[in-house]
Formats: sequence, C-alpha cells, structure tokens
Amino acid sequence: MADFENIAKQFVEYYYKTFDSDRSQLAPLYGTDSMLTFEAAPSQGVASIVQKLVDLPFKLVQHQVATLDAQPSNAQGGILVIVSGALLVEEEKRPMSYAQTFQLVPRDGSYYVFNDVFRLVYPAA
Amino acid sequence: MADFENIAKQFVEYYYKTFDSDRSQLAPLYGTDSMLTFEAAPSQGVASIVQKLVDLPFKLVQHQVATLDAQPSNAQGGILVIVSGALLVEEEKRPMSYAQTFQLVPRDGSYYVFNDVFRLVYPAA
Repeated sequence: MADFENIAKQFVEYYYKTFDSDRSQLAPLYGTDSMLTFEAAPSQGVASIVQKLVDLPFKLVQHQVATLDAQPSNAQGGILVIVSGALLVEEEKRPMSYAQTFQLVPRDGSYYVFNDVFRLVYPAA
Repeated sequence: MADFENIAKQFVEYYYKTFDSDRSQLAPLYGTDSMLTFEAAPSQGVASIVQKLVDLPFKLVQHQVATLDAQPSNAQGGILVIVSGALLVEEEKRPMSYAQTFQLVPRDGSYYVFNDVFRLVYPAA
C-alpha cells in the first residue's frame, strides 16, 4: 500500500472515531484556512467548523465506512481522501448513506484537513 | 457565485454531457499526470483513463446531478468539485446513486482533471 493510502486509512479511522465519541475534539485536525461544506452550508476556520459540527442536531452518531479512496492531490504532499458509508444518528431508525471528501495537507510533520465536503446521498430510485 | 463555483458548474455540465454522448471525447480534459480511481480501479494518464471509461460495460448512460459542491483546493487556482447524483445505464431498470470527486487544476488558461474518483453509493439500510 502506498504511503498516502496508509495515511488516508489512519486519518479516516481517527477522524470518525473522534467524531463519534466527542466531535469537539476534532479542532486540532483543522486550520485557520480550512473549509467545510456540510450539506451545502459553508464554514471556514477551526472555530467556525468545529462549532458547526458540535451544533449538528444529534448527540449519538456512528459512521460506518463502506469505501475509502485516496489519491495524491499535488506535488507538495497533499492527499485526497474520499469516503462513502452509512451514518446512524440517534433519532433515526435506518442508517443514511453519505459521501465525504477531504483534502489533507502537510503541516508540522503531520497533516491537517484543508478541504472537507460532506453530503448525504439519497437512494436514486 | 464565486468564480470557482461557476467554473465547477460549467465543468460538471460539460463533463457529463460529453460522457453521456461520446465518452472518448473526454481525453482533452485529462493530462499525463491525471489519476482516475473508478470503483477502486486505478488508471493514470490520458490514454489509460479514456480507455477505462470507454471500456465500461454499457453504451447508453445518463448522469443526473443531484448535488454539486466546490471549494478552492490550493493557492494555485485548483478547484475541488464534488458531485452526487443518479446514474442510469441501459441494462438497469433502476438508477444507481453515485458520488464523484474531481480536482481541477489550471492548464493553459483553462483547467484539466488532475484527480477523479468515482463510486457507486448503495443504500445504507
């Protein structure tokens, strides 16, 4: 497995584990120039992004990753990470499908989330 | 609407119109360093990517875009374009949901597709 694929896999595991236990703890994964588009609603910067995630109208949430793809996004070590899977929230009886795209960008020997786009994906038929 | 959003919208319209009429004509949209991951199968470079798309086991295909998100991907004018929608192919009676992520990168006063990741998204329940 290429290095970027390992990094993508580790990131996704850590990201959703943190999201599903205490999403306020995701702050260190973002930066001042990070962008989130969550169901078409845009946020920019750590504080705004984490506030958006914390304010989502559910407490109990579980992400189940179904597919994970990764590609290098530039010559400076950026990595595109694309996930699809199922989202279970407390008040719903049935899981919903979602797709999420991240771009990870190198920072201080590690990575941070520069781009983050989340969408629920509804059945087509 | 910001410039990158207009570019994303125009790209998506052109891309799927071309894909659904004659996908061999997508070649000019890719470059030698372009990457495609189509249902986990990787291709790199114009010839390999277009061959992969042309070889897909259907002739009649129609993409119906449901959501379109865009974010700047770097300081050099790159644009992330994330689409979800429905895919109808000739032998299927029901459309399938899909998610596709592109990174567009400036080239010669226009853009080309540097990253392309396609996945069918199955109902979670």
